[in-house]
Amino acid sequence: MGRWGMNDRLIRECIEACLACVTACEECASACLSEPEIDMMRGCIRLDRDCADVCAVTARLLMRGSDLHAQVCALCAGACAACAAECGQHRHDHCQRCAEACRRCEAACRKLAA
Amino acid sequence: MGRWGMNDRLIRECIEACLACVTACEECASACLSEPEIDMMRGCIRLDRDCADVCAVTARLLMRGSDLHAQVCALCAGACAACAAECGQHRHDHCQRCAEACRRCEAACRKLAA
Amino acid sequence: MGRWGMNDRLIRECIEACLACVTACEECASACLSEPEIDMMRGCIRLDRDCADVCAVTARLLMRGSDLHAQVCALCAGACAACAAECGQHRHDHCQRCAEACRRCEAACRKLAA
Amino acid sequence: MGRWGMNDRLIRECIEACLACVTACEECASACLSEPEIDMMRGCIRLDRDCADVCAVTARLLMRGSDLHAQVCALCAGACAACAAECGQHRHDHCQRCAEACRRCEAACRKLAA
Repeated sequence: MGRWGMNDRLIRECIEACLACVTACEECASACLSEPEIDMMRGCIRLDRDCADVCAVTARLLMRGSDLHAQVCALCAGACAACAAECGQHRHDHCQRCAEACRRCEAACRKLAA
Repeated sequence: MGRWGMNDRLIRECIEACLACVTACEECASACLSEPEIDMMRGCIRLDRDCADVCAVTARLLMRGSDLHAQVCALCAGACAACAAECGQHRHDHCQRCAEACRRCEAACRKLAA
Repeated sequence: MGRWGMNDRLIRECIEACLACVTACEECASACLSEPEIDMMRGCIRLDRDCADVCAVTARLLMRGSDLHAQVCALCAGACAACAAECGQHRHDHCQRCAEACRRCEAACRKLAA
Repeated sequence: MGRWGMNDRLIRECIEACLACVTACEECASACLSEPEIDMMRGCIRLDRDCADVCAVTARLLMRGSDLHAQVCALCAGACAACAAECGQHRHDHCQRCAEACRRCEAACRKLAA
């Protein structure tokens, strides 16, 4: 049994979900910056940036077994929920992929945030 | 009036406090890693790392006017409080300076975390 | 004499310049995302994001006295130069402030990158 | 073909290698901080921290298709080489895993740094 005890598997899954979400948010923000109708993508770009940064620090704290894991996961779940709500409204593939990654990450974070 | 309205001054002060705390935590962690009695500094190094990372992302989100500012400040206040409690127990100058920076940052974050 | 020897003052100045540049880039990117003519600000937003991230990690490595300081400062100088060139073409106050912060940071990094 | 053209596969592999290296470095640093003979692990902890931070920003810049990709990969290859050299000298499993992840990441970065 590792340093995290019985939650070890959940933490591994959450780290993976956070890293996948960072990737999806970065790709979505970059793609939004190249969309012809960028005027409609402002909110998406904003939330992608915040979500990517929060997911990244959450993954790092989980990797190192930080005592802050429950609190940072609560923050991260909120960041993912907001980003998923915005990205889910757009039909671009990158937005839909991002919304899906955000929802998975939110779910993984909620399990550790309790 | 800026994008943050009446809280603009408080946010500026919090950004400054977060950046000062990142600096103090990084310097403290590095100095702890060079202390002869490193065995006693394990907790200090751990908390310095977490606190620096959380303060850094807090500053970034505040700089950009993120909607997550209240939640990330709540997380940051907790990270600072934990680090101040540990560093404050050690007599090294770098630990005392770090504890002071953490306390200031915690106070600045609490004002925005409500 | 500190852990960095004779370059201690230059390193302090570089850390300050990096943190000021992170701040200016974040503020510029956020303001660009609210500009009516966002279509013209795509490059500015992209470079602001990269520059902010690179300046942030440069500051962190300098704070901790990393052996990588010369290499990361070389990278950072390049990131700042590119961002200054783009932001300097726009008349918005936030772009002009960002370009100035980038130029100062580039200069400070060049002194440590040799 | 994606925004990176013919190098798309190499960039994907490099992002994966960077994220695996961040994970290994964080886990190694945390484990080193719990080792009885922490006195011998000082250099390992220092290099793990630097390597994790540099790999993290490298991954982020690659994800977003940054123009800085060649320069940041050159920096990252150097950070990984230094960390692998140190971690490879220690027999702990976490050090050996970290050294292996660093070597893989260095190799992936070298392909993009030319």
